[in-house]
Amino acid sequence: MTEPDPRGRIPEADVARFRDLALTLADESRSRLRGFWERGVEIKKKPDGSYVTSADLAVETRLRELIERAFPDHGILGEEYAPRLPAADFQWILDPVDGTEEFVHRLPTFATVIGLHYRGAPLVGVIDVPALEERVHAAFGLGAFRGDTRLRLQDLDPTAPARAVRVMLSARVNFVAHRDDGPIFEAITRAYPNHRIYRSSYTHLCAATGQADAVVDVGNVIWDIAAARILVEEAGGAFRVVQDYMSGEDRIFSTVFGRPSVVERLAALFVGPA
Amino acid sequence: MTEPDPRGRIPEADVARFRDLALTLADESRSRLRGFWERGVEIKKKPDGSYVTSADLAVETRLRELIERAFPDHGILGEEYAPRLPAADFQWILDPVDGTEEFVHRLPTFATVIGLHYRGAPLVGVIDVPALEERVHAAFGLGAFRGDTRLRLQDLDPTAPARAVRVMLSARVNFVAHRDDGPIFEAITRAYPNHRIYRSSYTHLCAATGQADAVVDVGNVIWDIAAARILVEEAGGAFRVVQDYMSGEDRIFSTVFGRPSVVERLAALFVGPA
Repeated sequence: MTEPDPRGRIPEADVARFRDLALTLADESRSRLRGFWERGVEIKKKPDGSYVTSADLAVETRLRELIERAFPDHGILGEEYAPRLPAADFQWILDPVDGTEEFVHRLPTFATVIGLHYRGAPLVGVIDVPALEERVHAAFGLGAFRGDTRLRLQDLDPTAPARAVRVMLSARVNFVAHRDDGPIFEAITRAYPNHRIYRSSYTHLCAATGQADAVVDVGNVIWDIAAARILVEEAGGAFRVVQDYMSGEDRIFSTVFGRPSVVERLAALFVGPA
Repeated sequence: MTEPDPRGRIPEADVARFRDLALTLADESRSRLRGFWERGVEIKKKPDGSYVTSADLAVETRLRELIERAFPDHGILGEEYAPRLPAADFQWILDPVDGTEEFVHRLPTFATVIGLHYRGAPLVGVIDVPALEERVHAAFGLGAFRGDTRLRLQDLDPTAPARAVRVMLSARVNFVAHRDDGPIFEAITRAYPNHRIYRSSYTHLCAATGQADAVVDVGNVIWDIAAARILVEEAGGAFRVVQDYMSGEDRIFSTVFGRPSVVERLAALFVGPA
């Protein structure tokens, strides 16, 4: 891309204000989700078989209120409600409970994903994991952080044996949800046998911190991955979109991100004759 | 088996005393591991490439002291030190840090596994997950518990679609560590695509609580699975040994456990012409 990055035009003080709002949203989300986690939630199945809980709806409503009050000209895209101002330059992208099945079955890796994009490029990202009391955040040009600690990913030796690489990837169900990418799941799990599968964007946090060497996340809509790119890039890692296609009315992304040399090795497994 | 269960001979009051010691060991282990988790540990690689930390060694030493003091005629089998009284009827089986790679890379699912077996049959089991502040325990005839709450697994409808079944399984590296069972990994992940891979006995806790419908754990030595059977059986679940073979000097077990109908369905995938 030879165009200058549009994000470079935004004053740093504005980026910092947006980041501060994202952190306030994450505080709000965490405190509400911890309440639901301790007291329990009402659970419904959506027509597609996925879950929605009273927690998703309540948290998304509250985050929308806070964004509308602070930046009334910004758009909002969330999983549970209709888009607000879809033509606006600034778009907040929200997934209040990513990993709803984890939340419902009391697996503590569910997360809140908050992203702010400017003309399609990520400006701010936060992933908060309430049950683990873990959070990472990043903003364009301002770095990636876990708490007050700046995150700086070191690359892995490109000749490191595959067994020494810690990969986190999607479950096979994600590889076959929209089309049959089962052979890619098998290629990755064979080549990189030291893998973990968590089924939430907790893995994105792990890519930014280095707890995973790289993450392969397939078959996602935008709000699942709204924070990953800025988090990983600001931490010094690489982020690659390896699939981008339509499934019905949904635009589906598959992404690979983490330590640069590992990302290259994993992305190569998506290149086929098709 | 038509022999009476040898465990039936042990007075309930003795079983309760053994369980109380196991809980004391778990308290001790948790408090020490939380200290190491917060302050950090010294890490070494063993000749087989696995990790050992100052935490493993310190905790196992301390647990051995407490057992020897309470029951000097009991045997002890642990990962890091030589067996004590290997011919004794009662054998304590310890894995102070199961999931050492998780511990080293700050993934919070590492666990302490404590089991007491009587003539090869499990009498008491505890799995403690210090970073998640989670614990389950069970004793023969006395039930399985999470804290003060008795665990009672409900079976799943045997006709439930495979996608509705939540399976936790070993990583592919465990299926190929001792011999090539890669095809079984692929059979399970294809048939049950809603799977999670955590790489520690946190999954055993999840089988006892129902957070997983079933667990497939392959290629283990005895201390990895010393607590799983009593935990799951006392919770009303099923436990099946699906592989039992020698690899060099090690006896290797693969096991499937959790809700009974799911265990049957998964165990069937291990039955082949070989």
